[in-house]
Amino acid sequence: MNINKNYLNLEDSYLFSTIAKKVAEYTQNNPDKKLIKMGIGDVTLPLAPVVVDAIKKAADEMGVQSTFKGYGPEQGYLFLREAIKNYYYRKFITINTDEIFISDGAKSDLGNILDLFDKDNTVLIPDPVYPVYVDTNIMDGRKVIFMNANEENSFLPLPDNNIKCDIIYICSPNNPTGAVYTKEALKQWVEYAIKNDAVILFDAAYECFIKSKELPNSIYEIEGAENCAIEFCSFSKTAGFTGTRCGYTVVPKTLVRNGIHLNKLWLRRQTTKFNGVPYIVQRGAEAVFSEEGQLQIKKNIDYYSENAKIMSETMDKKGIFYTGGKHSPYIWLKCPGNMKSWEFFDYMLNKIAVVGTPGSGFGKNGEGFFRLTSFGNRENTIEAMKRFSELF
Amino acid sequence: MNINKNYLNLEDSYLFSTIAKKVAEYTQNNPDKKLIKMGIGDVTLPLAPVVVDAIKKAADEMGVQSTFKGYGPEQGYLFLREAIKNYYYRKFITINTDEIFISDGAKSDLGNILDLFDKDNTVLIPDPVYPVYVDTNIMDGRKVIFMNANEENSFLPLPDNNIKCDIIYICSPNNPTGAVYTKEALKQWVEYAIKNDAVILFDAAYECFIKSKELPNSIYEIEGAENCAIEFCSFSKTAGFTGTRCGYTVVPKTLVRNGIHLNKLWLRRQTTKFNGVPYIVQRGAEAVFSEEGQLQIKKNIDYYSENAKIMSETMDKKGIFYTGGKHSPYIWLKCPGNMKSWEFFDYMLNKIAVVGTPGSGFGKNGEGFFRLTSFGNRENTIEAMKRFSELF
Repeated sequence: MNINKNYLNLEDSYLFSTIAKKVAEYTQNNPDKKLIKMGIGDVTLPLAPVVVDAIKKAADEMGVQSTFKGYGPEQGYLFLREAIKNYYYRKFITINTDEIFISDGAKSDLGNILDLFDKDNTVLIPDPVYPVYVDTNIMDGRKVIFMNANEENSFLPLPDNNIKCDIIYICSPNNPTGAVYTKEALKQWVEYAIKNDAVILFDAAYECFIKSKELPNSIYEIEGAENCAIEFCSFSKTAGFTGTRCGYTVVPKTLVRNGIHLNKLWLRRQTTKFNGVPYIVQRGAEAVFSEEGQLQIKKNIDYYSENAKIMSETMDKKGIFYTGGKHSPYIWLKCPGNMKSWEFFDYMLNKIAVVGTPGSGFGKNGEGFFRLTSFGNRENTIEAMKRFSELF
Repeated sequence: MNINKNYLNLEDSYLFSTIAKKVAEYTQNNPDKKLIKMGIGDVTLPLAPVVVDAIKKAADEMGVQSTFKGYGPEQGYLFLREAIKNYYYRKFITINTDEIFISDGAKSDLGNILDLFDKDNTVLIPDPVYPVYVDTNIMDGRKVIFMNANEENSFLPLPDNNIKCDIIYICSPNNPTGAVYTKEALKQWVEYAIKNDAVILFDAAYECFIKSKELPNSIYEIEGAENCAIEFCSFSKTAGFTGTRCGYTVVPKTLVRNGIHLNKLWLRRQTTKFNGVPYIVQRGAEAVFSEEGQLQIKKNIDYYSENAKIMSETMDKKGIFYTGGKHSPYIWLKCPGNMKSWEFFDYMLNKIAVVGTPGSGFGKNGEGFFRLTSFGNRENTIEAMKRFSELF
């Protein structure tokens, strides 16, 4: 018996456990101080009423023999794939229902998609980055090359023609930096991918925060992307589904590598290793796309966006460099006074009882940076920014 | 870019598509005949009322800010893991909550668990078999050895000490044969696994159909299994969750290979590539373990078991060799008159309009056998067996 020894190459992450430990210590020593947490990447507003109603209606159907649903299609019910197809269509993108795969979230599929690729591929990943991109490739033993995202390129690196790679990760709006690629920049990535015979794995989990029609919500707004890109999206941030679990993956039928259609390969993977998303959850997700659903989720997204605006305005006023905030729930700021990430974390915690995430936890280029999120409530966001303003 | 070429070694399965095509043809040519389908491995009775209520209550919680749940623990909520721990405890098995991982179904985890093992392992799989065991290993490029399950060993093969292997699949009660291993037989498998430093992947998805206290519901009823076995179970057949998606995997903390605790490895896999099962679904699953829930699901299991009994009695009366039926929803019968599996399929369809599954679709030893399921309704089961009795 040989275990997969690649797992031994994974680095333990102490980022969130260290934060929790420091916060617990602080709270114990300062029981009277009101702590404001702006570190967590999880939503806090409840599910939209239309979603709750749709789930309950579906649960009732499951309790009656004539409307009970057993195994559903692994790829997802057509009613939900149609709704997603129409959602793309309203953004002038044509995706067919058999190119859409319903998942239990972007995280699962971003990991599982790697099943389709040989170990012998080179992977290009921006730094700083969502750690899952790196770890899932280390687990498979693939070679990872990092590309620097930093203040000079506004955390939006462009392709380097001297680097040859096979799999490219792009997350826009980005986690953790909140930076958003323009169409022109993504066009360069698509051209580079095609030239290199590479595949772009495009993480669009935060697309709903984009306010400008000029910025791309989807890689498929770029001509040629249907020949080189797989897109991952999720209802987690769009509709508060972090605990309800539903997302979708688009694998165009025109995406061919080694003469093989990746759509066919992915369908085979999913029918073999997955049994679909719960019917009740798919009905909940479908409700998101109803007219009422779109209005209800917009209210939540606007609420988080307004929080982000309050934070951005504070940074602007103080002249602090940051990315994100405008088309993203994240503010990625340069620590004032050239502080290091953890130094700044301690300073914020001890001086104003505000908790964020040290940027160094997301990669070497994150050192000296700090992530704040807009997923908290309004009152706390205002209070935290007031304390911040008084401190600097 | 290199795709995973192991996918090209997968054989296309035409089993269920061929059945569907033949049935469609028959229906078109015989619009007046009442067709009875006994081929499908999916449940038909609705979710238990306590489950529906729990899901609806949880959906309501998700619609209110103070009770809303975002990301849950990847391993599953403690309330459900506690319920499962107690379920094992009532069977005199001690499993800790941190050895239980909530999944979206046994199929997913049976595939995903292979992430933990190197490609360079030999896999032992019974034939006939649930095709997913084979395909998931072919996708990874592992060497598969088949062990013969046949009439001579009552479809319950025992270890062969001349064969050396690293990963062993056991499904008991078995899909497709319905055969159930005794404790003595499983003891031989555990001894063999320990001697070979192998890991047993034990699929217990049909354990709820076992009626006898003498037969093991879990591999952990066997001493030493905690050092060599991972168990997969599901609410699919137990509580009609095929479309609701919830299962669980047990990885004992005492299971160590190459000096590494597989529990720790699996936790790392799940936290990296999975984000947990929907809160609403976990609340539904929890309700299964309530006193009322246990009574309600027992009613459904008894209903299917009574169907199986009606089918077994017909086979007994006709003197047809079969396995299953008593502790399983499946009847695996030897085709009368030495017919081949597909020949018998056509004969049944054309003569008495009853549809089953040709055994040859599950492996070479399935040739000449046929699977009938007890998941249909009572009236149809009685009618089908009446027609069967008249035919033979």
